Amino acid sequence: MTIEISAFAWVPPFAQGYVKDLRPRWALAEAGIDYTVSLVGNGRADTPEYRAWQPFGQVPAYRDDEVELFESGAILLHIAQKSPALAPRDKQEAATTTAWVFSALNAIEPKVDNMILPAIFHPGEPWIEGARAAAEDILRLRLNSLSNALGEKDWLTGRFGVADIVMASVLRGLQDEPILRDFPRLAAYLKRCLARPAFDAAIKAQLATFAENAPPEAAAS
Amino acid sequence: MTIEISAFAWVPPFAQGYVKDLRPRWALAEAGIDYTVSLVGNGRADTPEYRAWQPFGQVPAYRDDEVELFESGAILLHIAQKSPALAPRDKQEAATTTAWVFSALNAIEPKVDNMILPAIFHPGEPWIEGARAAAEDILRLRLNSLSNALGEKDWLTGRFGVADIVMASVLRGLQDEPILRDFPRLAAYLKRCLARPAFDAAIKAQLATFAENAPPEAAAS
Repeated sequence: MTIEISAFAWVPPFAQGYVKDLRPRWALAEAGIDYTVSLVGNGRADTPEYRAWQPFGQVPAYRDDEVELFESGAILLHIAQKSPALAPRDKQEAATTTAWVFSALNAIEPKVDNMILPAIFHPGEPWIEGARAAAEDILRLRLNSLSNALGEKDWLTGRFGVADIVMASVLRGLQDEPILRDFPRLAAYLKRCLARPAFDAAIKAQLATFAENAPPEAAAS
Repeated sequence: MTIEISAFAWVPPFAQGYVKDLRPRWALAEAGIDYTVSLVGNGRADTPEYRAWQPFGQVPAYRDDEVELFESGAILLHIAQKSPALAPRDKQEAATTTAWVFSALNAIEPKVDNMILPAIFHPGEPWIEGARAAAEDILRLRLNSLSNALGEKDWLTGRFGVADIVMASVLRGLQDEPILRDFPRLAAYLKRCLARPAFDAAIKAQLATFAENAPPEAAAS
């Protein structure tokens, strides 16, 4: 089985360690599956060839001997079927896994993005504080629900799987935010997820790609 | 096979026809599969019993003889496996379907929500125009990518499926917005999706639920 994922050749330091190819890198590291990286840089993101693989010009895209696909959630559900370390044990666990992957990406991530991204992409604009406060109100409700659903469990579905990889990747955006202190169960869950050796391997692999492909002016700074 | 979905007993008029149980109703109507509705009202959304089924207290939740699950995207992928009318023809079509369902819910819907929802939930607040403009800028890029990916095809995966149900449900939020006029291919795609008899059946079924359960003050107005 040959597996290839796409990843940006380089991104500015604030985004390093947070680009979404981290998610399949993490899942593949958990599964002990090797992969190659197809670099996206020098305008490739906008080429018809790359858009046929990833319609939005983003990363990651994925291909193996059987299929090619895009969207980190879809890629992780696909990878989960390949590995004893990640495959759901029965139909109910598979269904619950799929549900939580969607929750992470539709119920939680957009609200995290709304809290974090405006200050990064629209610094100083007068609307960002109001938008952030509204996003935080909704996010607080969602995190409360998520914390209750997690309960005393270590992982969302009873054992570690791709739902935890996606959810932890999303919650990680809140690591430096005070809001997570109000949800100690989620803070502990996030810490537990990020302590996994496969997460560390994924981060190192992403950062290694950026180091290898740093533009001269970035390498010099 | 007994199928049950949850739906709010009643919502205010502005939300009627747009609550997300419309999505499984539409898919089940396409498949010709009967279902029963488990009503959510009178505080049931916050009960431990309902939260065990739908952790965020939202709709829809779903159960059949084999599994129960939540999140409209997860529910539609599950329903797609059950029906010759919706089941992917091969592994690649299944992978592409899953990818587009995630795109609709993670790449497109959050930006549509950011354009539309602040004016509904925070009317008159000073930040909503700035937030809307920023959301529209991103959405415009995404719709352009989506339009290019759709190309001359009638449907996202080559034949109608749950990816189209989710994408059309999301794009429908833009029906009264000028932005859709700038993407005539997507406007035509949306019209084509909404012309399907199963969409009409789903809308009628959702509205019938609300009519049956309208509170006295709403019924009188």
